[in-house]
Amino acid sequence: MSNKTNQQWGGRFNEPTDAFVARFTASVEFDQRMYRQDIQGSVAHATMLTEAGVLTVAERDMIIQGLSEISTDIEEGRFEWSIELEDVHMNIEAALTAKIGITGKKLHTGRSRNDQVATDIRLYLRDEIDLILLEITRLQEGLLGLAHQEADTIMPGFTHLQTAQPVTFGHHLMAWFEMLSRDYDRFVDTRKRVNIMPLGAAALAGTTYPIQRDITCQLLGFDAPAENSLDAVSDRDFGIEFCAASSLLLMHLTRMSEELVLWTSAQFNFINLPDRFCTGSSIMPQKKNPDVPELVRGKSGRVYGHLFSLLTLMKSQPLAYNKDNQEDKEPLFDTIDTVKGCLRAYADMVPALESRKEYMREAALRGFSTATDLADYLVRKGMPFRDAHEVVGKSVAYGIETGKDLGEMSLEELQAFSDTISEDVFDVLTLEGSVAARNHVGGTAPDQVRAAVKRGQDKLGARA
Amino acid sequence: MSNKTNQQWGGRFNEPTDAFVARFTASVEFDQRMYRQDIQGSVAHATMLTEAGVLTVAERDMIIQGLSEISTDIEEGRFEWSIELEDVHMNIEAALTAKIGITGKKLHTGRSRNDQVATDIRLYLRDEIDLILLEITRLQEGLLGLAHQEADTIMPGFTHLQTAQPVTFGHHLMAWFEMLSRDYDRFVDTRKRVNIMPLGAAALAGTTYPIQRDITCQLLGFDAPAENSLDAVSDRDFGIEFCAASSLLLMHLTRMSEELVLWTSAQFNFINLPDRFCTGSSIMPQKKNPDVPELVRGKSGRVYGHLFSLLTLMKSQPLAYNKDNQEDKEPLFDTIDTVKGCLRAYADMVPALESRKEYMREAALRGFSTATDLADYLVRKGMPFRDAHEVVGKSVAYGIETGKDLGEMSLEELQAFSDTISEDVFDVLTLEGSVAARNHVGGTAPDQVRAAVKRGQDKLGARA
Amino acid sequence: MSNKTNQQWGGRFNEPTDAFVARFTASVEFDQRMYRQDIQGSVAHATMLTEAGVLTVAERDMIIQGLSEISTDIEEGRFEWSIELEDVHMNIEAALTAKIGITGKKLHTGRSRNDQVATDIRLYLRDEIDLILLEITRLQEGLLGLAHQEADTIMPGFTHLQTAQPVTFGHHLMAWFEMLSRDYDRFVDTRKRVNIMPLGAAALAGTTYPIQRDITCQLLGFDAPAENSLDAVSDRDFGIEFCAASSLLLMHLTRMSEELVLWTSAQFNFINLPDRFCTGSSIMPQKKNPDVPELVRGKSGRVYGHLFSLLTLMKSQPLAYNKDNQEDKEPLFDTIDTVKGCLRAYADMVPALESRKEYMREAALRGFSTATDLADYLVRKGMPFRDAHEVVGKSVAYGIETGKDLGEMSLEELQAFSDTISEDVFDVLTLEGSVAARNHVGGTAPDQVRAAVKRGQDKLGARA
Amino acid sequence: MSNKTNQQWGGRFNEPTDAFVARFTASVEFDQRMYRQDIQGSVAHATMLTEAGVLTVAERDMIIQGLSEISTDIEEGRFEWSIELEDVHMNIEAALTAKIGITGKKLHTGRSRNDQVATDIRLYLRDEIDLILLEITRLQEGLLGLAHQEADTIMPGFTHLQTAQPVTFGHHLMAWFEMLSRDYDRFVDTRKRVNIMPLGAAALAGTTYPIQRDITCQLLGFDAPAENSLDAVSDRDFGIEFCAASSLLLMHLTRMSEELVLWTSAQFNFINLPDRFCTGSSIMPQKKNPDVPELVRGKSGRVYGHLFSLLTLMKSQPLAYNKDNQEDKEPLFDTIDTVKGCLRAYADMVPALESRKEYMREAALRGFSTATDLADYLVRKGMPFRDAHEVVGKSVAYGIETGKDLGEMSLEELQAFSDTISEDVFDVLTLEGSVAARNHVGGTAPDQVRAAVKRGQDKLGARA
Repeated sequence: MSNKTNQQWGGRFNEPTDAFVARFTASVEFDQRMYRQDIQGSVAHATMLTEAGVLTVAERDMIIQGLSEISTDIEEGRFEWSIELEDVHMNIEAALTAKIGITGKKLHTGRSRNDQVATDIRLYLRDEIDLILLEITRLQEGLLGLAHQEADTIMPGFTHLQTAQPVTFGHHLMAWFEMLSRDYDRFVDTRKRVNIMPLGAAALAGTTYPIQRDITCQLLGFDAPAENSLDAVSDRDFGIEFCAASSLLLMHLTRMSEELVLWTSAQFNFINLPDRFCTGSSIMPQKKNPDVPELVRGKSGRVYGHLFSLLTLMKSQPLAYNKDNQEDKEPLFDTIDTVKGCLRAYADMVPALESRKEYMREAALRGFSTATDLADYLVRKGMPFRDAHEVVGKSVAYGIETGKDLGEMSLEELQAFSDTISEDVFDVLTLEGSVAARNHVGGTAPDQVRAAVKRGQDKLGARA
Repeated sequence: MSNKTNQQWGGRFNEPTDAFVARFTASVEFDQRMYRQDIQGSVAHATMLTEAGVLTVAERDMIIQGLSEISTDIEEGRFEWSIELEDVHMNIEAALTAKIGITGKKLHTGRSRNDQVATDIRLYLRDEIDLILLEITRLQEGLLGLAHQEADTIMPGFTHLQTAQPVTFGHHLMAWFEMLSRDYDRFVDTRKRVNIMPLGAAALAGTTYPIQRDITCQLLGFDAPAENSLDAVSDRDFGIEFCAASSLLLMHLTRMSEELVLWTSAQFNFINLPDRFCTGSSIMPQKKNPDVPELVRGKSGRVYGHLFSLLTLMKSQPLAYNKDNQEDKEPLFDTIDTVKGCLRAYADMVPALESRKEYMREAALRGFSTATDLADYLVRKGMPFRDAHEVVGKSVAYGIETGKDLGEMSLEELQAFSDTISEDVFDVLTLEGSVAARNHVGGTAPDQVRAAVKRGQDKLGARA
Repeated sequence: MSNKTNQQWGGRFNEPTDAFVARFTASVEFDQRMYRQDIQGSVAHATMLTEAGVLTVAERDMIIQGLSEISTDIEEGRFEWSIELEDVHMNIEAALTAKIGITGKKLHTGRSRNDQVATDIRLYLRDEIDLILLEITRLQEGLLGLAHQEADTIMPGFTHLQTAQPVTFGHHLMAWFEMLSRDYDRFVDTRKRVNIMPLGAAALAGTTYPIQRDITCQLLGFDAPAENSLDAVSDRDFGIEFCAASSLLLMHLTRMSEELVLWTSAQFNFINLPDRFCTGSSIMPQKKNPDVPELVRGKSGRVYGHLFSLLTLMKSQPLAYNKDNQEDKEPLFDTIDTVKGCLRAYADMVPALESRKEYMREAALRGFSTATDLADYLVRKGMPFRDAHEVVGKSVAYGIETGKDLGEMSLEELQAFSDTISEDVFDVLTLEGSVAARNHVGGTAPDQVRAAVKRGQDKLGARA
Repeated sequence: MSNKTNQQWGGRFNEPTDAFVARFTASVEFDQRMYRQDIQGSVAHATMLTEAGVLTVAERDMIIQGLSEISTDIEEGRFEWSIELEDVHMNIEAALTAKIGITGKKLHTGRSRNDQVATDIRLYLRDEIDLILLEITRLQEGLLGLAHQEADTIMPGFTHLQTAQPVTFGHHLMAWFEMLSRDYDRFVDTRKRVNIMPLGAAALAGTTYPIQRDITCQLLGFDAPAENSLDAVSDRDFGIEFCAASSLLLMHLTRMSEELVLWTSAQFNFINLPDRFCTGSSIMPQKKNPDVPELVRGKSGRVYGHLFSLLTLMKSQPLAYNKDNQEDKEPLFDTIDTVKGCLRAYADMVPALESRKEYMREAALRGFSTATDLADYLVRKGMPFRDAHEVVGKSVAYGIETGKDLGEMSLEELQAFSDTISEDVFDVLTLEGSVAARNHVGGTAPDQVRAAVKRGQDKLGARA
């Protein structure tokens, strides 16, 4: 048990905090990663207090100098973090007072840990979102490059994991690109609600000091000060919204991962994943496992879990700040780390994917993938779609029985199902004919893929 | 077991669907609520097919007339929904063919149920988001009215549910207003990603018909056609994003509900909730229970659950459409219904809340709520904040021992803790002085509350 | 708005419930499915009250007769449920009073809706668990039958979806059997905590009437009365535990479904799923989609969601009953329905699965699946395992380069990697040799599979 | 990038693992906490291999000696963990080989990391469950002690947070005791399914070595070997079930925490929480915050999140092991740590709770808490319950209007509502009369509380 009461709120207390409780309630082990933002916020606060006449210029300069030294100490590994001082904020403030004396104690004028921590998290998250946006763009660039290269590569398109219609591999990759574009936009939208400044809310009601929130707001690059002090200290929406956007991103990565795992299996064999992204087995010498996609797929659970953790955390909390909220940081930080790690792994890996075009093509040839083309052919000859569907269905049943794909049947065999069919039917039963015919915005035709890649490049260009 | 194979995909099948399987896999019982959007989409599709030369004007008119009659049949309760026909789409198409014959079968040309259902859900959700936005605004209007009326009412502000500092009730209500403003903005952002048109993606690869997606897009009021057909039929992001926004909204309502339940308890007694929003007990005759806030609080579980249901659903699904996706509708629909119900209940209830000002004031007087004001007073007299905190902490310890609040101590008693204290200290120890002093943007001062209400009114006005 | 206050708690109220609120807070639409349990509980309660001298025998008989008639009315569709009467309990009580007059009002003596509803849910859930246990057993029986039949069928075993080692199909099916055995045991454990009687807790504190809880306990088949009245009316653990057990079951079904979907793909082609468990496509005439496994896989989201819904619901609720708890029923009921539906679909489908042995075997031959056997062979000749692993790894690299599986290499080729290899190596490189050699409890050898099936049959036999 | 391929599966690989990928996929930073179980498993495996004739006695002894030294190295902080060696298993095996040479490489004979890791986690979790069971018992002992002491203390019982009926504080504490009893039983049930041995499953199919699983099973204290090798390496049910049991436990702790937070508020003031379990505010000198209950309440989110994380992780994974499963450990470990920390905090805190009997009593007197007693009184005089309810409801309405509780009204006033009321009514309107009258198993009467405490003591006694 610590032999004195905590320095920052001791006056009212009769006995020191229980040693286990001190450890159990301390956050410094995980919140110290926000030290840079904490110092950045304090510098802005001191600057504003000087403008407002609360600190002198000399006091401000001492404070800024002291904080600068502390920042260096931390970066160079010399700073001693203390659990007794609970969190990153009190550790830094105590070090400041140790360095510059009584003036250090004045820094906390007109603010509280409640608005300080809310400010620090927002600054931290904003910076991380900016890094995430860059990494999404890098992954999207990789996809555009690969999609352009594979615009003419034909593979089976699946629904229900059953062969459906031929598509181009470039088109499939552009579906991934679209998912990521929505993720990008969601993070941009989230960032708007992150970049609001709680500072000035103090404990919950604002402060009696003549603070000027527009000054700190500008110094810290926030879009606006929070409108309401009670809300400012108790709002954790931004973290939840970030985790929701991250969950959607991870969900997309699970879908890509699922496909990569399938495509690298011996059964599909559509893709080669370079050895450097794989690992082997300690017992089975032949194994080359697609570890990166699998691990990313597994990491979805982690991020989904964090989202639910934060939603649970905030359920039924009365205003304003409650200690429960200390639990907001670890899920958020781990989500940030996971998102960045998964994006990096994917952005590194995607350009290295090697398609096995012959296996893709062979798979597309199997499975009656041009059956819809035959139906469309019949409709163009005047048959109602539903009737054409029935005719082709019967041809397929015949094909299953005889082991022939549609393109392998003779004209006579096909005409047995409808006399509308004539010699020109074989043009629509080729893979190339099938994909080329889907030639509209969003369709799988190679020209459409190239056009979509071009639009994608313009979109990424406009982000810079 | 149905004695024939399903009409729409029967050609290839040797045996009919098992009767239990037919029931187990059918969706018509819950997707029929989208009949209006399904018909709307079909009318637009038929119109476009005519422009594209696939249907004649006469065929189009027959189709539109037939669909119009079906719409009337449904609305007047005459339509017979059939589980054998699986879903809303096939039910309506079969009815159309029954009405107008062979032409009805042509409607499905150039589209698939995969893009059809994705289009219907988006149209449906877009309409519902618009209703939800109106209901959020109505609730916010109620809050603005009440906040303006209660701008001067003093209550204790809490952190950790311990008395912290006096705030105004109007200020507290404006914290709720801020939460809802973020919800509004999130739904607006979500709507952008909802209002994208999948139609034209067909089954997964686009279609060979000369469709003109810009025409259907414009007719249906979509912002743009989806860029990629594979993505278009398999994307359910919009539903998840909507449920995430809804979860945040419900989370906010749990916080308000928690406070209303506390405030209507005998212990707080801050609020009277009119009888019409309460229910009683079958055994305890004196009970008047705040059922509406409690039930809304409980409904958060439902919406959180639906969010996780959808995230789970989409995890690891390979492209493009899989039957799993049929499970997207019920969670989404129930989320919509729940959000609308809870908002309606709150929007009706909030203007009817009656504050019990005397109990609020009495509670604010207790609990040393002006302790921070005393510390700030000492700082203004030159004491570093951390030292002032220690002085006040000791005064509070003395107050607990003697049963006196700070404002009840004599000058001598106060001076025992610091001789910096003089007669003017009593000005800062009043509740009115305390709240009025927090006079900056976001602060609790009555003037700030009124200014915030004014800004809120402008914001709502700009929505119209 | 209803023009009178609610009959059951009206005395204290000045105005009737708002009409929307009445609808919003009513539960009769979903809790009426417990009518049988509600009546069963009332009959037991009336019987006990008679033993305790609170009701006369004549009163009891009138009540039981009245309830019996109501039960018939409900079953024959003649009962009119009223939303104004809120829930199943008040609907039935009101009907009883209408039938038998003042005596009906005496039934509620010594109980409250709080213990009544808790009792009803437990009775209902207990009955449903018993049905679920039967259905798990039926599915397990199907697996045992199929596993016995496929005990010698060789297929590739996968890790990371890469070919790992040959296994028998029967062994794979027995892995599914094991998962379900744990599910069975979990439901049995859950049932112990479900089958505890809340009746007698009254509103929250017990009752002043001389109730005899052992009588109702015995009449209703409960294992014991709940030990504490406050806990009894606020405990919903049993529902959460049931949903947790159900989530694990559904998770298992997603794994089986994932495999069935893979196995019915053209790429694997290990399994044929009879047409009656599949559906087709409205646009692609050749499609036969494994809808049942896919839909079951999707339904996991629903059940996971309900689990989280209930966990959220109960978070931070103070004792005892709160209106939030009304939200416990729909997630629970839907979980029950989903579990039963998915089990039925699987129990019907599993015996109809047809293996395509030739494709399974061919896949096992590919992919160096006997590499571990070669390593084990080297170890038996004295080489440390890690070194043997390295030797085989190099042979595999050579095989990839030259397109030869291990069994296709000549003795000379193999000896180039280690001169420890001699002619007898080819015995261990056959599929049959590989699986037969794993001949210990839990291993994949056909004899072990048959022994495991036998043990499984004994286990199921012991349940009856 | 590491300049050589990984030692344990290098033979087949052409290029080394990417350095970021190596870090991204390594688990040693979090799985090293299982080193003791890993060594324990290896010792048992070596012992069994010797019995089976695979290792000589001398080899076994060298291995055991080497592992023993490694264990000491780790405990004394001398062991150097390497990320290149991926995980705890390979780190220890590499160290063993470095120590004892070629014999170290023989240890992995007849097992794989897949069964090794599954065995380690189960051993680890089993040990932790045993610690958790002890800590639950310690907390329950504290509750029994306090409940016995407070068996006669009267407080208001709440439903809907509205005063319902008087209860005893001891009775309320025994409700908490009951919740924890269910938690205890659930962990015991979970332990049965944890304590099953995967060892012998090898990679997925069993092994060709003549292993004797009954020997390792006995040496490691497992109840039985896993029945199926494919299931054994892919089963993570036990972790999910543990997290589900933990979620229920944490949910219970949120309910207790919610009540403690309420009870320590100025408005309730039912409880004093000693200073050592509280912390203060950096800005508000008067604050004493119930940090421990609040933080525990917040930690529910973390545990719920981990449960969902694991359920998501396992969804749709084909058999057998996939890399996704590496993500099973962190959620499990953090759940263990959180459960132990929260239980410790509660077990320390509960015996230190101090009731404020006078405030409890005063609150029970307010709010018509004996209204049900009045209704019961009328029923005993022959009035049907529903009519009595109406009479009392009207008395309460009168009481609200006149500011009088029921016990404060004159006989005449009461008789205005029913002439059945006579002088003896005042006996039932006292708090003591009210609680004493609920004198049946589960009721709130002080004698019942003492009897329940006695039964609780017997139950805890039987655990030892």
